[in-house]
Amino acid sequence: MFIALDGIDGAGKSTQIALLTRWLTDQGEQVISLRDPGSTATGEAIRQILLDSQLQMHRRCEALLYMAARSQLVEERIRPALAEGKTVVSDRFLLANVVYQSVGKAVDADLLWRLGEIATARLQPDLTLLLDLPAGEAVKRQRNPPDRVESRGQAYMEQVRQAFLLQLPAASPQTAVIDASQSVASMHTAIVQQVQRVRHAHLQQPPDPG
Amino acid sequence: MFIALDGIDGAGKSTQIALLTRWLTDQGEQVISLRDPGSTATGEAIRQILLDSQLQMHRRCEALLYMAARSQLVEERIRPALAEGKTVVSDRFLLANVVYQSVGKAVDADLLWRLGEIATARLQPDLTLLLDLPAGEAVKRQRNPPDRVESRGQAYMEQVRQAFLLQLPAASPQTAVIDASQSVASMHTAIVQQVQRVRHAHLQQPPDPG
Repeated sequence: MFIALDGIDGAGKSTQIALLTRWLTDQGEQVISLRDPGSTATGEAIRQILLDSQLQMHRRCEALLYMAARSQLVEERIRPALAEGKTVVSDRFLLANVVYQSVGKAVDADLLWRLGEIATARLQPDLTLLLDLPAGEAVKRQRNPPDRVESRGQAYMEQVRQAFLLQLPAASPQTAVIDASQSVASMHTAIVQQVQRVRHAHLQQPPDPG
Repeated sequence: MFIALDGIDGAGKSTQIALLTRWLTDQGEQVISLRDPGSTATGEAIRQILLDSQLQMHRRCEALLYMAARSQLVEERIRPALAEGKTVVSDRFLLANVVYQSVGKAVDADLLWRLGEIATARLQPDLTLLLDLPAGEAVKRQRNPPDRVESRGQAYMEQVRQAFLLQLPAASPQTAVIDASQSVASMHTAIVQQVQRVRHAHLQQPPDPG
């Protein structure tokens, strides 16, 4: 089973991924925790380029770099882990790429989904969990000083939040919105419920012949 | 005017690009000489990843990295230069990417052309010159020791050569095959003839309203 967690920064992804990974391990599953972009040597090298604020970068170039990193992540880590029956938990996946590159119509969202299909050879998460938080709340949780994305302000973050909600249904067969203004424990409970729901549906199905 | 030179290694691209650039300059044109991938800070950083033989890299990831570098090259260098009326000469362009990634059916050629359309936002060279050389001849000119591509052997190089000939017509509105088994001077003469032919056609046309 492949689970992706996504949402604007400050929604508590890292904490919830750690809690979910521990819970899955306690259930007896072998869990691989990844981040996109990253989690391969090539992906981390690409991530360094993406984070280098000295480099001039066109939006389509940026989108293609995210796609390249994801392509390597899928082939080198995710497909092999799933083939071995492991559970994969990923900090972001294609959804975030579509959202951040399309906000403000910088790049067409449909084009990004199509690029994503090519990059991943159509591998989708079984479940995408969107940790949803009003932008005003996220701004209160910001680092000091804010990073490059955060410094774009609250109106931008609300645009991103709405784009996440809009694009979520295309991210995977199963999706869920998790209210990230709850306590850490309540969010974890809500996430576990969603994972159990989808896992139950999985166990009812015959194994994928592919 | 945007001119791309392409072909298997050993066909004499670098020499011919230097001669063509000098000839164009002598004609009073402002010439920008570029290489793809490369010729931007971001593109050179991507090129370093592509050349790093320590990095595990899936063919689709590799293709997307080439596309990302090209996207930046187009927006940062080529479009601005063309807008200023300069002549751009590029050492390789999308054609090579399609050829090297699709040989042996690793990645579908049509998919690569479509990716290329996205990466370049449909900017094509006005003229693509394919420096064509039989693989047996190219092998004789190889470095000692051969690099990663060269070490794949003569049969592979002949496959690449045939793929260049097959894909060339899709590379740009105007294309030409230059026999690279000729002398340096004869090749240069043939290249200049092709450039004059296309430049003449250009001057007959009304300027592009875009």
